[in-house]
Amino acid sequence: MTQSLRTVRALVFDVFGTVVDWRGSLIAEGRRLGRAKRLHVDWEAFADAWRAGYRPAMARVRSGALGWTSIDDLHRTILDTLLTRFGIEGLTEAEIDHLNRVWHRLKPWPDARAGLRRLKKDCIITTLSNGNVALLTNMAKHAGLPWDCILSAELFHHYKPDPETYLGAARLLGLAPEEVMMVAAHKDDLRAARACGLRTGFVVRPLEYGPGVRVDRRPEKDFDVNARDFNDLATKLARARR
Amino acid sequence: MTQSLRTVRALVFDVFGTVVDWRGSLIAEGRRLGRAKRLHVDWEAFADAWRAGYRPAMARVRSGALGWTSIDDLHRTILDTLLTRFGIEGLTEAEIDHLNRVWHRLKPWPDARAGLRRLKKDCIITTLSNGNVALLTNMAKHAGLPWDCILSAELFHHYKPDPETYLGAARLLGLAPEEVMMVAAHKDDLRAARACGLRTGFVVRPLEYGPGVRVDRRPEKDFDVNARDFNDLATKLARARR
Repeated sequence: MTQSLRTVRALVFDVFGTVVDWRGSLIAEGRRLGRAKRLHVDWEAFADAWRAGYRPAMARVRSGALGWTSIDDLHRTILDTLLTRFGIEGLTEAEIDHLNRVWHRLKPWPDARAGLRRLKKDCIITTLSNGNVALLTNMAKHAGLPWDCILSAELFHHYKPDPETYLGAARLLGLAPEEVMMVAAHKDDLRAARACGLRTGFVVRPLEYGPGVRVDRRPEKDFDVNARDFNDLATKLARARR
Repeated sequence: MTQSLRTVRALVFDVFGTVVDWRGSLIAEGRRLGRAKRLHVDWEAFADAWRAGYRPAMARVRSGALGWTSIDDLHRTILDTLLTRFGIEGLTEAEIDHLNRVWHRLKPWPDARAGLRRLKKDCIITTLSNGNVALLTNMAKHAGLPWDCILSAELFHHYKPDPETYLGAARLLGLAPEEVMMVAAHKDDLRAARACGLRTGFVVRPLEYGPGVRVDRRPEKDFDVNARDFNDLATKLARARR
């Protein structure tokens, strides 16, 4: 592994689950809304249901059944069904829109900011997320994420794991695929990036789906780096590049 | 002016000449190259000639005579002619490529970093440049420019002042045109942005073309803000938004 990592110039990050804790953020904001509006909702189930609607919605875009639609708009379509399903009533359009933008206000994992600052010293660090540009830009500002650049599936009108996203990111950065490392907590994302010639960094996020849900934490030798968190990734990358 | 500026959420910046001193940077790097390689070149004339080739090259893309071509590639085409014209010989391909990327290493005007940091507190700040994404990302990293986002003509396959660039930037930021202010030292850029419904901030850069060349520094009442530099822009914007 070590030799090839010397040529890595940019790290491109999956965001939902890898950089930010979508589930914890959704639940916390849901509970605040619930208290303010006297709503009796199981916000854990609500968060899980919102996220569960995400892949099927993207699949419709990826298959061509639905034309290009941003994550903000997909999230809103899912949210509208959840409001009915969870019996959430009495919100104004502005309040529903604000709730939909909770994805712009997700909180980073505890190591994310400090780890990114370390990684930024040696490499370009950028998002490569299915989230739209506005969402990622607002999130970075809100959460203090020090990206060098905001790259999004929206720029390619293709969602990950379509190859156009990984290859498009390398092209926009003016780099060869092997000069770019995809960093994600999701093995399918990394395998798709690897098939396009990118390097891969796996970071475990054991709490992504909540404390009761087991996630696949096993390191894989096919990935260039397997890390516990962003600080561990920074340490391992620095060692491999020495 | 004041009322409308309260709704400005993002500032989008022209870069060459507005944020960075392309001429001074090119001359300084040319002189260093000249000393190292014992070249006898009038680097001021060289810098001016390189920049003079830029608009005609983009005009060929804008008219459709040339398919989409990045600024890096347009710069290289111009550079190749200048190497002959200025009698620059003996450079390797790697050295020519490095020289072409001097545009990735341009130095900011003295007020730019501090002014951007102030402006960033209240608004999203992003590039909206004809420079390609890799150029703008590398420049930001090299020069310490604290952008929230990197937007480029490359994302729209249209060069400024085509309306697709201004409207595309607003769309990617999820904002209405009137929530976005174009900041530039060039009145044609601002007028085109204004025609698309954007707000406008004019910043004078009297030294852009060198100490001997007069530039149009007159404030215009059609622009929402006329400023001496980025610090003055931050002060005037804060006052107008109070």
